[in-house]
Amino acid sequence: MKQARHSDSILFKPSNPDYAAQVQQAFDGQPMLATMGVELFHIEPGYCELHLPYRADISQNHGYFHGGAIATLADVSGGFAGWSLLPEGMWIVTVEYKTNIVAPGRGEKLIGRGRVIRAGRSLTTTEIEVLAVEQGEERLCATALQTLMAVEARG
Amino acid sequence: MKQARHSDSILFKPSNPDYAAQVQQAFDGQPMLATMGVELFHIEPGYCELHLPYRADISQNHGYFHGGAIATLADVSGGFAGWSLLPEGMWIVTVEYKTNIVAPGRGEKLIGRGRVIRAGRSLTTTEIEVLAVEQGEERLCATALQTLMAVEARG
Amino acid sequence: MKQARHSDSILFKPSNPDYAAQVQQAFDGQPMLATMGVELFHIEPGYCELHLPYRADISQNHGYFHGGAIATLADVSGGFAGWSLLPEGMWIVTVEYKTNIVAPGRGEKLIGRGRVIRAGRSLTTTEIEVLAVEQGEERLCATALQTLMAVEARG
Amino acid sequence: MKQARHSDSILFKPSNPDYAAQVQQAFDGQPMLATMGVELFHIEPGYCELHLPYRADISQNHGYFHGGAIATLADVSGGFAGWSLLPEGMWIVTVEYKTNIVAPGRGEKLIGRGRVIRAGRSLTTTEIEVLAVEQGEERLCATALQTLMAVEARG
Repeated sequence: MKQARHSDSILFKPSNPDYAAQVQQAFDGQPMLATMGVELFHIEPGYCELHLPYRADISQNHGYFHGGAIATLADVSGGFAGWSLLPEGMWIVTVEYKTNIVAPGRGEKLIGRGRVIRAGRSLTTTEIEVLAVEQGEERLCATALQTLMAVEARG
Repeated sequence: MKQARHSDSILFKPSNPDYAAQVQQAFDGQPMLATMGVELFHIEPGYCELHLPYRADISQNHGYFHGGAIATLADVSGGFAGWSLLPEGMWIVTVEYKTNIVAPGRGEKLIGRGRVIRAGRSLTTTEIEVLAVEQGEERLCATALQTLMAVEARG
Repeated sequence: MKQARHSDSILFKPSNPDYAAQVQQAFDGQPMLATMGVELFHIEPGYCELHLPYRADISQNHGYFHGGAIATLADVSGGFAGWSLLPEGMWIVTVEYKTNIVAPGRGEKLIGRGRVIRAGRSLTTTEIEVLAVEQGEERLCATALQTLMAVEARG
Repeated sequence: MKQARHSDSILFKPSNPDYAAQVQQAFDGQPMLATMGVELFHIEPGYCELHLPYRADISQNHGYFHGGAIATLADVSGGFAGWSLLPEGMWIVTVEYKTNIVAPGRGEKLIGRGRVIRAGRSLTTTEIEVLAVEQGEERLCATALQTLMAVEARG
C-alpha cells in the first residue's frame, strides 16, 4: 500500500471567484503557447492541466517531443496552478524551477499537471508532473518543483 | 476532489529480498546521521521514512531546526528509498537534489518521507517531503526532487 | 576584487577532433530549435554559445521572451557544451536542470552560454548563463545548473 | 582561453557598513554550525567563504564528508553571501536551492564559496562552489544555485 502524501491533504480557496476566466486570459496572452500548440484543458483552485499534441516541428533528434517543449509545459502548468489562487490584478512570474526528465517525450500527446503545495503572500510553491501519452497509455515523462512570485499586473 | 498523481500509481519490486537489512546497514554506516540523531523509522521497496527529534544543537537563529538538518534529512530519506531497490553489492550516491523550504522547521520532530518515482538501471529519481511536527500536528516544511546513481560497493 | 571561480580553472579536451561538426549535426537535427529561431553561434570544447533573436510569437504577456524560450535556450546551451566533449557515436540526453530567472527576457536577443564544469564517463555537469540583450546592453536573465547523460546514438 | 562569465562583472555595495559584524553575529547564532565545526573564513559584500575541517563524526559510509555536511556548507555559504548585502534589521531565509555533487567530499577540509549573482529587494540569487581539499589540493566537490528571501528580523 502506498503512503499518502502530506501535500495532497492541503486544500486551497481561490481569492478571485472568476479564477478560471483569469487564468484563461493569462493563457491567451502568451503567444509562445499558441506557437507550440498548448491547450488549456482543466483548471481548479491550485491545480492546472495542460495538453500538448505532438507536432514534428517541436521535436528533437529522435522525433520525440523536444526537452524545451517538456520544460515549457511543466513551467506553465505550475504557473497557471499558482495563477488560479491570485487576487484580481496580480500576476505570476516564475522565480525558478527544476525539472527531472525521467523518460523520453514519446507519443501523441504530453499532459502537464501542476499543483500548488504552498501558497504564500508573495511566494507560491508548485509540483508538476508531465506525462507522455503513447497509444493512449500515460507514462511519467518529467517531474518538476517550482517557485512562483506574485507581482502587481501592469497597465 | 484532488487529482491523483501519476507517480503514486507506480509500484516497485525490490531486487534484494533482504532490502530492509541492506538499508539498515547503509544507515548504520553513516556517522553523520548518529551525530544529528536521525532515526530509521520505516522502510518499504521504494519508500523510506526517517525521524529527527529536536535538539538545540542542530538549530538556527530562531531555535528552529537548521536548514542543514532539513536538507540532510531530505537527502537521506530519498537516498534510502532508492537504496531499498538496489541489487546486493550496489551502493547509492546522490548526483543532485533540489529542496524548497516552504515553512520553518519548527516543532519537536522532523519527518522525512522519500519515495522513488523512477528506478532506472543506473539513475533513480525520488521525491521527498519533510514535515515539521509541532505539538503533534504535521505541517509541510520542505519538498525535494533528487537524482541518485547506483555504483559498485567497494570492499 | 572578485574571487576566482574554481570551475573556471578546469580545462577540457575533446574526444572527437571533429567536435564542432558533431555539435552542428546534433543542432541541425532538432526541429524545435529552427521553430524557435535558435542560432548556433560558437562552440569550443566544453563550451557553447547560442543566440535567439526576438520574435513576438515566442513571447509572454508583456511581450518579452517567454520563460519557455529562456529555459529551452539554457537547456540546449548546456547540452551542446556537453556534446562537444563526446566520443563519436555517443549522444547527450538531459537528466535534469534547474533554472533561476533573475530578470525578464526583455530585448532584441537572448544569448545562452553553457560551460561544462565536470565531465564524467556517464554524467556531465554544466552551468549556463542566459543574457538578455537590450539596445546592445547585456544583462543576466537566467542562470542554470544541469546534469547530462551520455548514451549510445541510435542507428 | 576561457569565456568570461557575465555574473563575475556584477559588483555589489553593502547596505550596512558593518556588514561583516552583521554576518558574524548571524553565523554565531546558528548552533548547527558549531556542532559541525564550520568556520567563517572570509566575508565581502556579496561573497562568503566558509571552511569545514574533516571530522569522522560528519562522514558517510566511505569515511568521506557526508552529503549533508556538503549541502549544509553550500547552503550557508550562499546564505551569508546574501546576508552581507542586507540592511540592518533584516534577515535571510533560504527559499530553495539545488546542489550537484560532482565528486566525493574526500580530504582534510571542505571550502564553501558563495557569491551573489542578483540582489533584489526581496529575493537574492546566489551561486556556490564547494571544494574538497586533499593533501592541499583543491578539487570541485559540489556546485549549487540558491534563492534567498529577506525578512524582518524578529525581536
